[in-house]
Amino acid sequence: MTLQSAFLVLPLFFGAIAIAQEAKPPQTPPPQRPPWLDTPEVHSDNSVTFRFLAPNAQEVKLAREGAEPLAMQKDDKGVWTVNTAPLPPDYYGYSIVVDGVRSLDPYNHGLVPNLLSPGNFVHVPGPPSLPWELNDVPHGEVHHHFYRSTAANDQRDFYVYTPPGYEPSAKKTYPVLYLLHGYSDDASGWTAVGRANVILDNLIAQGKAKPMIVVMPLGYGTMEVIRVGWGGISTHPEVREESFRKFRDALLTEVMPKVESEYRVTTDRNSRAIAGLSMGGAESLRTGLNGLDKFAWIGAFSAGGMPDEFEKVFPGLDAKANQQIRLLWIACGTEDRLITPNRNLREWLKTKGVLHVDIETPGMHTWMVWRRNLAEFAALLFR
Amino acid sequence: MTLQSAFLVLPLFFGAIAIAQEAKPPQTPPPQRPPWLDTPEVHSDNSVTFRFLAPNAQEVKLAREGAEPLAMQKDDKGVWTVNTAPLPPDYYGYSIVVDGVRSLDPYNHGLVPNLLSPGNFVHVPGPPSLPWELNDVPHGEVHHHFYRSTAANDQRDFYVYTPPGYEPSAKKTYPVLYLLHGYSDDASGWTAVGRANVILDNLIAQGKAKPMIVVMPLGYGTMEVIRVGWGGISTHPEVREESFRKFRDALLTEVMPKVESEYRVTTDRNSRAIAGLSMGGAESLRTGLNGLDKFAWIGAFSAGGMPDEFEKVFPGLDAKANQQIRLLWIACGTEDRLITPNRNLREWLKTKGVLHVDIETPGMHTWMVWRRNLAEFAALLFR
Repeated sequence: MTLQSAFLVLPLFFGAIAIAQEAKPPQTPPPQRPPWLDTPEVHSDNSVTFRFLAPNAQEVKLAREGAEPLAMQKDDKGVWTVNTAPLPPDYYGYSIVVDGVRSLDPYNHGLVPNLLSPGNFVHVPGPPSLPWELNDVPHGEVHHHFYRSTAANDQRDFYVYTPPGYEPSAKKTYPVLYLLHGYSDDASGWTAVGRANVILDNLIAQGKAKPMIVVMPLGYGTMEVIRVGWGGISTHPEVREESFRKFRDALLTEVMPKVESEYRVTTDRNSRAIAGLSMGGAESLRTGLNGLDKFAWIGAFSAGGMPDEFEKVFPGLDAKANQQIRLLWIACGTEDRLITPNRNLREWLKTKGVLHVDIETPGMHTWMVWRRNLAEFAALLFR
Repeated sequence: MTLQSAFLVLPLFFGAIAIAQEAKPPQTPPPQRPPWLDTPEVHSDNSVTFRFLAPNAQEVKLAREGAEPLAMQKDDKGVWTVNTAPLPPDYYGYSIVVDGVRSLDPYNHGLVPNLLSPGNFVHVPGPPSLPWELNDVPHGEVHHHFYRSTAANDQRDFYVYTPPGYEPSAKKTYPVLYLLHGYSDDASGWTAVGRANVILDNLIAQGKAKPMIVVMPLGYGTMEVIRVGWGGISTHPEVREESFRKFRDALLTEVMPKVESEYRVTTDRNSRAIAGLSMGGAESLRTGLNGLDKFAWIGAFSAGGMPDEFEKVFPGLDAKANQQIRLLWIACGTEDRLITPNRNLREWLKTKGVLHVDIETPGMHTWMVWRRNLAEFAALLFR
């Protein structure tokens, strides 16, 4: 018999029970489905077995976030397998490269949303002390907003985390962290992949972070910046700059006023932070350091993607800014290609006498680094 | 050179710009990436071209929601292609079946979350009058809640839609629709796939539906019901029944009280509706018809997956219920395998003298049917 898509036929099983006696309906009967693959399988020693069914492929590799690709081996049923070494507890993105083509794992419902390269993730569980582990603590809520943007001339969305115990009708107000995703993420990146809500829940429960509201907007001013893709964006800096300008307008003139009218937030500069990863790190530095009347706390995690003429990017920035900056926190993984431009920026800030915190941690350009960055940075805010 | 996962290397491009002069870092340099595939490509006549790169596959098919699989043809670059006939405007789920294995489309960021068979979707745009089209109308918000369930003994989530203009501190209260997903969906199903928030936004903007709050809980009482899978659930009705009981407890004793304390909702039975699709349709009928003290409006879309001894499932149900039921709306697609059990149920209700609305529409067991069901059903509520 021919095999047919599980997507198509699986929802029919309820019917199959009830109508066994019935004449053949227009659908094809449920086929023999391919064997279910238990993948990824996390073992008690934290090694992980990945499996992928591709009977006719010639070469299959596991591409795990932050690691060199691993060759997978085929068995006589066409199942490709690889076992990793024991891994530090974390969430790891991955995809399967089948004859050179990045592929998703159809047996894993853990999806990594991404506008250019969606993928999967595997969770290697760790102790409750890890900030991204889901613990039995009070949980905040994540609110998904939709609106028409005049600045960007489109329909777009943003997310807002409110901490446990947030009460819309109470008088208490909260400080706000504006938290920006990286290039190719969508607005859900920091919650769906970065686990920002879980991290904040844990920090707040442990008394490590002040209860705060976290606003996660869409980080593009024009979706053209996505349409040109990874290749185009480096050859079209004007698209990147237009995207940044319109993003900043949308943030400052649309998202921020909406948040400040709909949520109980403290609206002075000392109660506003801005931080982000990669492209979002550059956006945070440019928006924050050029907007110290609005933001007193600024964080950049593996920042990248801004012009390297810092004098033009931060006009007039000098040691006077130290009176306004409560925290300028610049982090990058030491194995990240962006470590050099980040060091260059910090060197330039030093020549200008602008005080900042340098953070270099092990790691590449990965969410494993950024979750840790968020946990460390959020704990410092609004003190 | 060897190809490497785009997932792994793409985020590095910012670095690649800035450090061209630098010594080779630990990462491999960005590889030649496989050609970008424009897929799915929707043409002006509403036909769609699907493409999939699989140079060594022997047979590749498109499996589109609600349609027979279509064979795809390979070109000399290993790209498999198929053109559909013009399609009615809609959102269609699909997957690509590669040598018998259901696969996701790595070039399409439109993902369909599902616990057993995640997939992709394609949007064939239509006129603004279609209820699922994103229009320039006031938008409601979608709130994602997380809590520890005593009934289910786990950490779980639910979603709440609040209509445009909802004001937490105002005195106005809103009626509530509890809206349940199908087997293998997660709690995000009705928003991420069913576009419930967009549908409600449009109906409310057009004056076709009363402004209401929509609560979308997780529809399982135990995740064991997912672990046994499509095969296991039919051979383990006891798991399904345990799941239903605990789900209902979680809904009635946890989710409902949380919603009624956190949102401005009207709490009389005439202001409460319950509806769902497939498994969620059965859950709605069982919870609603056995809980008429709580629910006056009940909807079932392609309901399936309950015991067929209706006398036991709905003990004591008879024509007296008509005094309490404001609407009992039972819909199913005529090409759905579940049409027979649905007709059986309606026949039984008729013998009991229980008034209900029979809806049979063209269609199979698909979201295309359920989005229309929601749009029709929601318009009737709370009148």
